[in-house]
Amino acid sequence: MDAKTINDMLPFVLKRENVARYRKGRVEIGDRRKYPFEKAFHICEDVEGVARAVEEMVTQGGGPAVAAAYALAMAARQAAALPAEKALARLKEAKTRLVNTRPTNTAMALWLEELQDIAEKALEEGEDAEAALLASIESRRDRDYEAYYRRARFGADLMQDRDGILTMCFAETSFLLALALAKQDGKRIQVFVPETRPYLQGARLTAPSIQEIGIPVTLIGDSMPAYLMSQGKIQKYFTAADLITLDGHVVNKIGTFQLAIAAHHHGIPYFAFMWGADPGHPDRDSIRIEERDQGEMRSCRDVATTLDSIPAYYPAFDITPPYLVSGIITAKGIFSPYDLHRHFE
Amino acid sequence: MDAKTINDMLPFVLKRENVARYRKGRVEIGDRRKYPFEKAFHICEDVEGVARAVEEMVTQGGGPAVAAAYALAMAARQAAALPAEKALARLKEAKTRLVNTRPTNTAMALWLEELQDIAEKALEEGEDAEAALLASIESRRDRDYEAYYRRARFGADLMQDRDGILTMCFAETSFLLALALAKQDGKRIQVFVPETRPYLQGARLTAPSIQEIGIPVTLIGDSMPAYLMSQGKIQKYFTAADLITLDGHVVNKIGTFQLAIAAHHHGIPYFAFMWGADPGHPDRDSIRIEERDQGEMRSCRDVATTLDSIPAYYPAFDITPPYLVSGIITAKGIFSPYDLHRHFE
Repeated sequence: MDAKTINDMLPFVLKRENVARYRKGRVEIGDRRKYPFEKAFHICEDVEGVARAVEEMVTQGGGPAVAAAYALAMAARQAAALPAEKALARLKEAKTRLVNTRPTNTAMALWLEELQDIAEKALEEGEDAEAALLASIESRRDRDYEAYYRRARFGADLMQDRDGILTMCFAETSFLLALALAKQDGKRIQVFVPETRPYLQGARLTAPSIQEIGIPVTLIGDSMPAYLMSQGKIQKYFTAADLITLDGHVVNKIGTFQLAIAAHHHGIPYFAFMWGADPGHPDRDSIRIEERDQGEMRSCRDVATTLDSIPAYYPAFDITPPYLVSGIITAKGIFSPYDLHRHFE
Repeated sequence: MDAKTINDMLPFVLKRENVARYRKGRVEIGDRRKYPFEKAFHICEDVEGVARAVEEMVTQGGGPAVAAAYALAMAARQAAALPAEKALARLKEAKTRLVNTRPTNTAMALWLEELQDIAEKALEEGEDAEAALLASIESRRDRDYEAYYRRARFGADLMQDRDGILTMCFAETSFLLALALAKQDGKRIQVFVPETRPYLQGARLTAPSIQEIGIPVTLIGDSMPAYLMSQGKIQKYFTAADLITLDGHVVNKIGTFQLAIAAHHHGIPYFAFMWGADPGHPDRDSIRIEERDQGEMRSCRDVATTLDSIPAYYPAFDITPPYLVSGIITAKGIFSPYDLHRHFE
């Protein structure tokens, strides 16, 4: 399937040019904080602007890495008049600032490292570093979308006619494309989306995106999936994965684990779409779960839900052990969580 | 333990006079919609005012029955100048209106039926129906608080020093009193409270009430308990029960079942405090789960969380089967959910 056809099947927030784009020397980031109430772009004129946008959650999922990559191209453009050595120093500074916005996103750090090497080579050879970076970024994005498609194809083939599908948070391009492909294949599916407190990615991003591609969707509370399972409404559970350890533990948005237990209890298979696999995380003990601002748990869309004096706890992710995972969907096929080493062979 | 000591141990919203009270011929209902941001009372001048307050969720849990009972006394007072027959007709009308506010609350309906008989008898004998009703209501409330205490005593004895306790929604007087008694017994406990979307009873009522009685409390999201269990933070799970079938199914706030599965998965016992048991509900098939306005799932404290066009589903309760329930806490002791018939012997 060609790139344009794939892009046309995706909902607004996931279209390639709406995640983040580079226009006239500026980075324009699709503002997921405002969606679905507004389809807005956050315009960044310098690296600091992009770094702050990432820190302030303008984008999430795959978005920060793309925005950061374009920020490096912007830094190269703004340093074009400087001697090569000074320009490279500027780029290194930019890279450090960008990497620090998401210290646990090792995939982003690796990509920015790679891009810095490309810029360095271009500067040494007296070539246009901005152009070299953009060519590399677009080629990488081409490959990413090809991989999304391959994962989506495997995911769509797991879905059966009349399946009720449960998801959690915003499972992004592979999942949305899988739904679109299943629909194209004539399968009538229905998706149940937990709102995903406290950031409400399910309510704000997933449910409107699924509705946009013409698939029946129902918004539910985070505490409801088990009851729907007991009613026979759910046949499969799919999520993304922020990280998968080499021994098959799925790290994803807090709540993923609780629903995996409920699915297991009801004999419902759970599949996770694999994004980057990180050899730096061999097992559960290598995971440090980020704790976010507890104030997020005392409010909802900036309205207080309880007293400021109430202590709260907001672990951003949880860990689903491999015995609860039926399959890891990769671009190469659906792997057992106990067999991921083969994926890297 | 005497009534005053018990009442003094309870947090603001659960103190006997703050649930609902009868003052100067008016019914004053503790307004749980405004708590914890305001400690306000909703004043009702007639039966219709009480009925609407109940329908509009001014109070919940045990509150509606108490408010409705006082509303009957108010109706009797307002009908005092009428001939006995007309006064009784007014009371019957009032009772019907009040019962219809919560068609599934059979315990409330039974109590109002009983109160109507008392009023009828008083009117026939030319006595003061208002006074007869109030005497009966206060005597019933005395017995309720004695039963709360007995259940709380059994609950407190289940709690051990350094236990992490999980709850869900607002488990009301028996649970809060159990926590207060455990504290009095020198047990250091910590309570984890899911916010309980969409109405946020956990964030608004449970967490502030537990903080008020001086017990460490932490507010979490509804999707987080399983992760906390995997961290070893939770030793026991306690909830109230809106209804328990004779064969041991616990009907309670949506989400209770999902957490019972997670608790079972981690080997954590789950206990439900029994309120009214209803011989009209022998088994799971006799339960009809109320579906509430789906708009509640598209907003939080009246702020939109997604587009109006997104379909949503809001079952108000779920059903936890007896194999997930370690014990039903009654005023007579802790019963196996498979042994409830003995409770009624």
